[in-house]
Amino acid sequence: MEKTPLLTTSGKPIRCKAAICRKSGEALVIEEIEVAPPKAYEVRIKILCTSLCHTDPPRGVFPRIFGHESAGVVESVGQYVEEVKEGDRVVPVFLANCQECVDCKSEKSNMCTAFPFIQEPGMPRDRTSRFTDSNGEVVHNFFCGSTFVEYTVVDITQVVKITPEIAPDKACLLSCGVSTGLGAAWKVANVHKGSSVAIFGLGAVGLGVAQGAKLRGASKIIGVDLNPEKFEIGKKFGVTDFINPKDDEEKPINEVIREMTDGGADFCFECIGFASVMNDAFNSCRCGWGKTVILGMEMHGAPLCVNPYELAWGKSITGSLFGGIKPKSDIPSLAKSYLDKELYLDEIITHEVGFQDINKAFDLLIQGKSLRCIIWMDT
Amino acid sequence: MEKTPLLTTSGKPIRCKAAICRKSGEALVIEEIEVAPPKAYEVRIKILCTSLCHTDPPRGVFPRIFGHESAGVVESVGQYVEEVKEGDRVVPVFLANCQECVDCKSEKSNMCTAFPFIQEPGMPRDRTSRFTDSNGEVVHNFFCGSTFVEYTVVDITQVVKITPEIAPDKACLLSCGVSTGLGAAWKVANVHKGSSVAIFGLGAVGLGVAQGAKLRGASKIIGVDLNPEKFEIGKKFGVTDFINPKDDEEKPINEVIREMTDGGADFCFECIGFASVMNDAFNSCRCGWGKTVILGMEMHGAPLCVNPYELAWGKSITGSLFGGIKPKSDIPSLAKSYLDKELYLDEIITHEVGFQDINKAFDLLIQGKSLRCIIWMDT
Ligand SMILES: NC(=O)c1ccc[n+]([C@@H]2O[C@H](COP(=O)([O-])OP(=O)(O)OC[C@H]3O[C@@H](n4cnc5c(N)ncnc54)[C@H](O)[C@@H]3O)[C@@H](O)[C@H]2O)c1
Ligand SMILES: NC(=O)c1ccc[n+]([C@@H]2O[C@H](COP(=O)([O-])OP(=O)(O)OC[C@H]3O[C@@H](n4cnc5c(N)ncnc54)[C@H](O)[C@@H]3O)[C@@H](O)[C@H]2O)c1
Ligand SMILES: [Zn+2]
Ligand SMILES: [Zn+2]
Ligand SMILES: [Zn+2]
Ligand SMILES: [Zn+2]
Repeated sequence: MEKTPLLTTSGKPIRCKAAICRKSGEALVIEEIEVAPPKAYEVRIKILCTSLCHTDPPRGVFPRIFGHESAGVVESVGQYVEEVKEGDRVVPVFLANCQECVDCKSEKSNMCTAFPFIQEPGMPRDRTSRFTDSNGEVVHNFFCGSTFVEYTVVDITQVVKITPEIAPDKACLLSCGVSTGLGAAWKVANVHKGSSVAIFGLGAVGLGVAQGAKLRGASKIIGVDLNPEKFEIGKKFGVTDFINPKDDEEKPINEVIREMTDGGADFCFECIGFASVMNDAFNSCRCGWGKTVILGMEMHGAPLCVNPYELAWGKSITGSLFGGIKPKSDIPSLAKSYLDKELYLDEIITHEVGFQDINKAFDLLIQGKSLRCIIWMDT
Repeated sequence: MEKTPLLTTSGKPIRCKAAICRKSGEALVIEEIEVAPPKAYEVRIKILCTSLCHTDPPRGVFPRIFGHESAGVVESVGQYVEEVKEGDRVVPVFLANCQECVDCKSEKSNMCTAFPFIQEPGMPRDRTSRFTDSNGEVVHNFFCGSTFVEYTVVDITQVVKITPEIAPDKACLLSCGVSTGLGAAWKVANVHKGSSVAIFGLGAVGLGVAQGAKLRGASKIIGVDLNPEKFEIGKKFGVTDFINPKDDEEKPINEVIREMTDGGADFCFECIGFASVMNDAFNSCRCGWGKTVILGMEMHGAPLCVNPYELAWGKSITGSLFGGIKPKSDIPSLAKSYLDKELYLDEIITHEVGFQDINKAFDLLIQGKSLRCIIWMDT
């Protein structure tokens, strides 16, 4: 039997490069690490490209390899894995989708209860890491599947097989931010024709919402962002009106939006991660049926406080991880929509760097200069 | 043309008795007042009976006539009123239903935007009162339609015509608390067969939720109340499990409920009016699709604070006035369900008093001894 070159590493540890975060706040350091072979139900993936999302900036235990938006190719699989095989194009995702638990089987949830979302390090089944540094010390993983590394190991419940027709950088975008925004507009909010939408934060997530709302026929899509540069790009994704909160600090933003929408938006999305903005979003939606969708991950652990009378007036608040996207079924269909030219993804990629320049990608994100910066592993 | 006795008062002021609240915290005083004839679009109603709900305890401006649960008969109508006529049995309601605005026409809202819910005194169209005391001073109305009075004046948008087949005390119950609970289970939460429900507070509102959930086939209906006497009556309305938070103060109530429901209830309802209990309710519902419905009116104006990450895990919070009930269409259909023996209402009436004993009814409510105490005006 002939073996493809990829298979030669199967069953053995792989030495490769990783961008390790050794201490909170410090720049990532490219180091050589060893990646153990996949255990049962696991898949080892050669990462082709990765990008950063605002959920990434370093926290928790160290040393750690971050990253959770990527696309790759299966290098080898562990025992019992039949869903993918060596050479398959895949996107690893941060949310499991076992397809068998009550949540995975329900149309209403994407929060797999058999493999709950874990923010602490470790693989989902045995809670250990597959990464070791050159001193033989454990390097922790992230969201059960770090991506700032040439080879990663991910549980099969977090691996989505994807057509090789879609280029890796576009596929990469589907593994977090953009899909979160699209899914939130479609599956969580269920935006409908003619509705008014306010989006707080025009990053990849917020622009995903805009695009999703536009495709559903929303008639007014208001983008709110402190960065005026986001306004031009927003237009390409369907944003019809812009508000920069800096422009009129006298008038509360919710008043501005209520005036623009004759009483309040039908749907408000928070795509930044500030409790105070979540409250602004809630106050900007209309009584009777206004729905606020929380997508931002609160940066300081602050509580969201609302006036309960506003809820009694018929408003609601919800949120979601990954915009309600069920990875195994929804990501392939988003890829198809992109290939069918229904979805814009190319415009989200504003920068590209080689792996050794990964810290540049962080700077761009933090300075708000990039939407998504693609980090290519092989350059 | 022959006139019925009722019509003899038409067009003239009526002198009658009212239970006036002259100062916050003071007992109501029965006094004689003058009730002006209905202006255009208004209806003057002879109240047959009224009851109290926890939204009533005195606040705002004084002197004032409170009350918003009642049933009566039309005494006379103002110009342009064609929907009801003298002698019709009606229930006045606190929420307008113009049937023409975008909200009234939508299935999603019961918050009429043409005649928004007003907590300040005054009639909706000219913001004046129809009540004058014996010194000629204005006595303020409540929710645009006080009911602790023998005759009241209400805008036609807040008057629901109802079949005389339903006794006034049962019809009275449909005008607020019970309907709020039923509507919340059906129209706001959309409780479905097999679901688990937790209800915080087993007053008329909470028991309405229980009954609504039971009729929808919920399999577990957990009632939470500090008053152990509410447990027996709860069973009649479908409550299957009881928790008295006093019984185990060590273990947070949300942990108890999550254990009882294998991860959290599908639906939680707050029917008390405490922000802290709203938070307990939110924490007791499951990730993925758990929905918390706020029905209680926060007693101290406290904000509801939640952990936004719990929202991201797929939970939602909503609320409603009147349980999403659209008065003009839904109340007649609830009356029919009662007459068809599908709904229990009789069991909600635990006490009855004459009008002169209205303060007793307040004591019973505040002490938690009554579900609803019917106050008959003619005794
Ligand atoms: N729910 C999920 O599953 C999920 C998935 C991906 C990302 N996220 C979260 O969504 C949020 C957005 O992610 P992203 O990758 O799009 O981030 P991003 O940094 O690309 O975009 C954020 C945008 O918000 C703007 N902004 C920042 N502060 C602002 C303020 N006070 N007022 C108005 N605009 C402001 C910035 O200028 C920027 O355009 C983050 O909190 C991230 O953690 C959540
Ligand atoms: N949303 C609406 O349209 C609407 C309509 C009617 C009533 N309400 C509100 O609903 C709430 C309930 O009204 P109701 O008439 O049923 O009141 P109620 O007084 O009859 O019932 C409240 C119940 O809560 C229990 N309770 C009080 N504190 C508690 C605690 N800390 N923990 C557990 N149980 C506790 C009491 O023992 C009682 O059984 C009130 O806030 C009222 O203003 C809202
Ligand atoms: Zn992300
Ligand atoms: Zn699952
Ligand atoms: Zn009430
Ligand atoms: Zn209306």
